Amino acid sequence: MRSGAAKSIVEKDRLDPWGQSAVKDYSRLQSEFGIEPVAPLLSRFKRLSHHLSRGIDFGQRDLSRVLDAIDSNKPYAVMSGIKPDRSFHLGNKMTADDMVYFQSLSKKATVFYSIADVEAYADNGLSFAETSKIAVRNVADMLALGLDPDKAVAYKQSEEVRVMRMSTIFSRSVTNNMLRAIYGERQIGLYLSALIQAGDILMPQLPELGGPKPVLVPVGADQDPHIRLARDLAAKHAADFGFVPPSSVYHRLELALTGGSKMSKREPESGFTLDDSPAEASKRVRSAFTGGRATVEEQRRLGGMADICPVYDLYRFHFAADDAHSEKVYDECVKGVRMCGGCKDEAAGLVKSFLERHQKKRDSMMGEAEDLLERSSRYLSSGGK
Amino acid sequence: MRSGAAKSIVEKDRLDPWGQSAVKDYSRLQSEFGIEPVAPLLSRFKRLSHHLSRGIDFGQRDLSRVLDAIDSNKPYAVMSGIKPDRSFHLGNKMTADDMVYFQSLSKKATVFYSIADVEAYADNGLSFAETSKIAVRNVADMLALGLDPDKAVAYKQSEEVRVMRMSTIFSRSVTNNMLRAIYGERQIGLYLSALIQAGDILMPQLPELGGPKPVLVPVGADQDPHIRLARDLAAKHAADFGFVPPSSVYHRLELALTGGSKMSKREPESGFTLDDSPAEASKRVRSAFTGGRATVEEQRRLGGMADICPVYDLYRFHFAADDAHSEKVYDECVKGVRMCGGCKDEAAGLVKSFLERHQKKRDSMMGEAEDLLERSSRYLSSGGK
Repeated sequence: MRSGAAKSIVEKDRLDPWGQSAVKDYSRLQSEFGIEPVAPLLSRFKRLSHHLSRGIDFGQRDLSRVLDAIDSNKPYAVMSGIKPDRSFHLGNKMTADDMVYFQSLSKKATVFYSIADVEAYADNGLSFAETSKIAVRNVADMLALGLDPDKAVAYKQSEEVRVMRMSTIFSRSVTNNMLRAIYGERQIGLYLSALIQAGDILMPQLPELGGPKPVLVPVGADQDPHIRLARDLAAKHAADFGFVPPSSVYHRLELALTGGSKMSKREPESGFTLDDSPAEASKRVRSAFTGGRATVEEQRRLGGMADICPVYDLYRFHFAADDAHSEKVYDECVKGVRMCGGCKDEAAGLVKSFLERHQKKRDSMMGEAEDLLERSSRYLSSGGK
Repeated sequence: MRSGAAKSIVEKDRLDPWGQSAVKDYSRLQSEFGIEPVAPLLSRFKRLSHHLSRGIDFGQRDLSRVLDAIDSNKPYAVMSGIKPDRSFHLGNKMTADDMVYFQSLSKKATVFYSIADVEAYADNGLSFAETSKIAVRNVADMLALGLDPDKAVAYKQSEEVRVMRMSTIFSRSVTNNMLRAIYGERQIGLYLSALIQAGDILMPQLPELGGPKPVLVPVGADQDPHIRLARDLAAKHAADFGFVPPSSVYHRLELALTGGSKMSKREPESGFTLDDSPAEASKRVRSAFTGGRATVEEQRRLGGMADICPVYDLYRFHFAADDAHSEKVYDECVKGVRMCGGCKDEAAGLVKSFLERHQKKRDSMMGEAEDLLERSSRYLSSGGK
């Protein structure tokens, strides 16, 4: 079935990090927002992640600064924040995959993982006792996806007073006009949330945490406003803190299994979490929207529309065995060789076996996740010692 | 000399907590902003502070709730925050006098004193090392002014993550329209500062700090917008936290020694600090603007204008030996018996001897101030145990 017309997230000449629309035209992000393409830098990597080799990570800002650090064996950080309001969904997995990959490229990499429990409380009414449990599971998910705990710091916003300090300081140097230019007219809660995220992004450069260094933030394309704000603030406060402007790498947004927009946490049916039952998740894949034609005959004649198909996205973004497999699915689809029924069956099987493996691994890593959280808490409360 | 025309802080039908204008008409605060007069409640006090007996504390919101707690021997808190950007000035002394007095009315009173070091850093670029030293001195000032350390908690915003949590939560439930209605169109830094102050004001009611209770906030008349915001937020979050709307008591603003506006931290010449040299401060008093007439002859004939005289304010607000003394100064002035030269000499002498006594006492209490800070820090970090 054909997915509905996707609303562009850049329709109003502004990216909306809080919206649910899909991105229609990634090249516009480059021409209008100054996001640079990743492609010219690919030759500098010794090994490509599937995000890079399959064009999922399409854009970047100052990524070369991180590559320079890797080449010269200098420290850098990879940072992201995730709201512990439920289990990891596929979008979180993409961020995690990027973090794991960029962490793996050097012994001098440190991952900073912010557990946004203050936001989960403010937005979703989840108590710190609840989010604390979810956070341990989230960290275990990260470990099961390959995070090296010896090069990682995981902290809760609710225990990290540095983030408050920094957002307060930053709030004095941004103007409402600057925020409106980046985000449009928003309620103050969202502006504050943006300032807190800027605090998270710049925290790894504080003196007691090793001082100024390149920091890579892997994000979805729609999150670029937060990166621009953090970069503006880094420049504004460079004299005081010596901040290096943070770097970013942008991944494409996955299409919703329900069609018509990007996959979103806020619409659970649009994807699934790493905690969903394998049977349930594979069932959801079997009933997903696709880029298929109205009839089998038409599909044989015209080929499927893989570019607007969320099932193809499952292969490409996550579950294809390798690049060749992902390409094969694409080619067979657009040439009209592959029909949606069989394609969905195959994807459902891949999803099921991934979830079975992942959940077993994740469950075995809960203790290690708790250790990482404890170790990080000690590290941060002792001022980075 | 006559003070220049005072700009009213209510000119734009809005109080400006960040402005420097004087209040012309305190009764308008009652009719337009819903601040209730203190007078009808005076008979409920067993003993009046000089702020109450001299009409310096003129207004209140829900002060009877605190009086009820006193009468029924139930717990209540007295809370205020002071930015540790320098030594206490006369305005801080007024807040401190109110805190000390309302603390003294019951064994069940607890003073919460917020050291706004995050704001001092954000606004004045003072490092936490610097403000930490100033804060100890400020607390010693409070002790020398009579604060009972056994019924007080003094905390630094930079170490109190609860304040960040609460301001984040609150930021989600205020709308820009609500903030604009209270404060006018302001930069986000000031809005955030207001939300942080609301966090300070409501913190004493958190479960781990004894739960919901009356909280009295003594403030200058111009700070009412912060009280209204905190009361709005208390009502909005009553279902989750059981907040009792905070009470407030308003003191008049002291006139600037330089004439024409209210005394302000931002214009050091407009007053003096409790750390200024006694000789220097009394010299400043001797060269202050007054409510005197153009000539001695005229002053004998028409009387002085005590109501617009910052020197009379020194007597009334701080340094008169007792109410009778303050009244005597006023009467002699307006009757044309008291001339400005002699009046300033007397005030300068009072200021000098107060500062000499206070500074000696304050210096002897630095160790006790450090103890209070340490004890408070342990109390708060152990979740109120």
